[in-house]
Amino acid sequence: MAGPDLSAIIASLPATVPFVGPEVIERKTGIKLRARLGANESPFGPSPKVIAAIAEAAPDVWTYGDSENHELKEALARHLGTPMETIAIGEGIDGLLGLTCRLYLEPGDKVVTSLGAYPTFNYHVAAQGAELVKIPYDEKDRESLSGLLDTVLDVGPKIVYLANPDNPMGTWWSADEITHFIDAIPADTLIILDEAYGETAPASTLPPMALMRPNLLRYRTFSKAYGLAGMRIGYAIGTPHAIAGFDRIRNHFGVTKLSQIAAVTALADQDYLAQTLAAIAAGRDEIITRARGLGLKPIVSATNFVAIDCDADDTYATMVLTEMQARGVFIRKPAVPGLNRCIRMSVGTQKDIALACDVLEDIIRKISR
Amino acid sequence: MAGPDLSAIIASLPATVPFVGPEVIERKTGIKLRARLGANESPFGPSPKVIAAIAEAAPDVWTYGDSENHELKEALARHLGTPMETIAIGEGIDGLLGLTCRLYLEPGDKVVTSLGAYPTFNYHVAAQGAELVKIPYDEKDRESLSGLLDTVLDVGPKIVYLANPDNPMGTWWSADEITHFIDAIPADTLIILDEAYGETAPASTLPPMALMRPNLLRYRTFSKAYGLAGMRIGYAIGTPHAIAGFDRIRNHFGVTKLSQIAAVTALADQDYLAQTLAAIAAGRDEIITRARGLGLKPIVSATNFVAIDCDADDTYATMVLTEMQARGVFIRKPAVPGLNRCIRMSVGTQKDIALACDVLEDIIRKISR
Repeated sequence: MAGPDLSAIIASLPATVPFVGPEVIERKTGIKLRARLGANESPFGPSPKVIAAIAEAAPDVWTYGDSENHELKEALARHLGTPMETIAIGEGIDGLLGLTCRLYLEPGDKVVTSLGAYPTFNYHVAAQGAELVKIPYDEKDRESLSGLLDTVLDVGPKIVYLANPDNPMGTWWSADEITHFIDAIPADTLIILDEAYGETAPASTLPPMALMRPNLLRYRTFSKAYGLAGMRIGYAIGTPHAIAGFDRIRNHFGVTKLSQIAAVTALADQDYLAQTLAAIAAGRDEIITRARGLGLKPIVSATNFVAIDCDADDTYATMVLTEMQARGVFIRKPAVPGLNRCIRMSVGTQKDIALACDVLEDIIRKISR
Repeated sequence: MAGPDLSAIIASLPATVPFVGPEVIERKTGIKLRARLGANESPFGPSPKVIAAIAEAAPDVWTYGDSENHELKEALARHLGTPMETIAIGEGIDGLLGLTCRLYLEPGDKVVTSLGAYPTFNYHVAAQGAELVKIPYDEKDRESLSGLLDTVLDVGPKIVYLANPDNPMGTWWSADEITHFIDAIPADTLIILDEAYGETAPASTLPPMALMRPNLLRYRTFSKAYGLAGMRIGYAIGTPHAIAGFDRIRNHFGVTKLSQIAAVTALADQDYLAQTLAAIAAGRDEIITRARGLGLKPIVSATNFVAIDCDADDTYATMVLTEMQARGVFIRKPAVPGLNRCIRMSVGTQKDIALACDVLEDIIRKISR
């Protein structure tokens, strides 16, 4: 007996998951991972002040967190120089993207994104019964602003999604180019600008907070540079009108108390963030140097990972990935044409990078292209 | 400029929230709360082992939590004596109720619940464009099993919601009565059995785990007896088929790493739970004794709160509530006819209860009925 019918849209969805986590890989393969460089986490960890604040607040977790995330919104408003009413807090960007799809999408609506861009966003779009239109990356492995714009003008989608800097390629556009793109998008199309990797990018990458448009929502997170992936906390920035929408459907007490405390404390320790950003930049350089030394073509990155063009086809890159995983190094690779010649390695500690690059070197030398 | 249109259903929703949190009340009134007895949290806190585990794991929060919540599901399966495949983990029962509504409800579907039952569930139903049919509580302040069943048979809803024990009244049905109810509901109606207060109820209240039906989902939480409200972690129990549905739409990495660790550790410390349950039972008795001493009519409760019938009307009970709040005691009251003669006080520490009951006594003596 199958039980009551799922809704028609849900019944049509596959039972797949957007990403197979490293713990799941370990359980499936029985191989204990020695380096965790596949999820773009920050092994430099959260600030020691955050660790102390979590430990100190642990006895208080019997109370629900503040449903309005007031203290965090206040701190973000001050830090960013934008009113509290322009900020919504959620369970990571993943959670906020899911809410955004539910707010705006109806069955049959079109959504424009890049072929190979964020699978979790696509997963949330599918759950609304909306239709994805995917544009190839450009010849420089960037999300194609002109391709996205042309398609938006052509199909009139409800939403266009763009990550800047981009994941999985690590490429980016300047704030000026992004602003021109935003201004060219019609007012009835919502622009989702995913800035998850904003902190690790050159200063000229992020448009100023003053760039408020009724059809623009920007997304940021404490999961990457701030080293708080496991705390699930991110935020969206937009006009007060757009931001107020989240209150209609969000899980009001959904962000944990410790996550709110951790985020406030992390934001206050900008010295630690600067230190982390320097370590990430150094690690990026190290991966690029090592990869070039192997005759590979790493792609210059504004993020905390490096996409490495293996200078061959999907089969070859997949073989490299599989072999890395078999030797306990967790990395990922894009699956779609145009990008699937690459593997993607997150910036780890010096030890992690050395281990991963040694393994990579050994594999490259053994596999003939 | 209002921005792109929200979906038709979302546009029709009010911008209200299901519950105004205590921090919000403090900010709005400027009154610092002295006792927090309105959200049915557990001031006895989590086990000291949980507090230690959180502090110990704090440096590791740079990694995402396990997307499959494997260790927690394994521990729950062992504890409950039911296969892992019958358990789904989510961001509290609130999160799981939201997902359930999204899985099953289409616009125009009917949902049967009790008038005065869980507002957050109703909020999630409204977000799907489904229609609530609300049945009054019975003369003993219980959710009316016969009323719910008759209405289910009459309107053929997609979902029927029942909490056992009940919130906000604290009343309950026996496992046998619940089982008879479940067996009388047609197979195409999903039964949501909310057992958030299951741990604090008499042993005869919860049907055995063997009660698996294709149209039954049961919900439990670490927020109440386990003292982990701020960690946002709960679970649903059902047939493997029904449980698999959650994987189609849930935020796969949405439960925080520390929440998973806290829940596993809490579950392992059943001695601490027993100690908490004894303290809750004693606190319940104390509230009942004090209320009776004031000539009020507390309702015997299977939960960690007591609904107190003020033996007058809504206006009177609201006056008591408002006055309590003005004096820094956070409690709540039901708003609907039939229940609105009551205030609801969570079981606090002995000190909290003494404070709250002293304030209540003072108010009752001053306000003439």
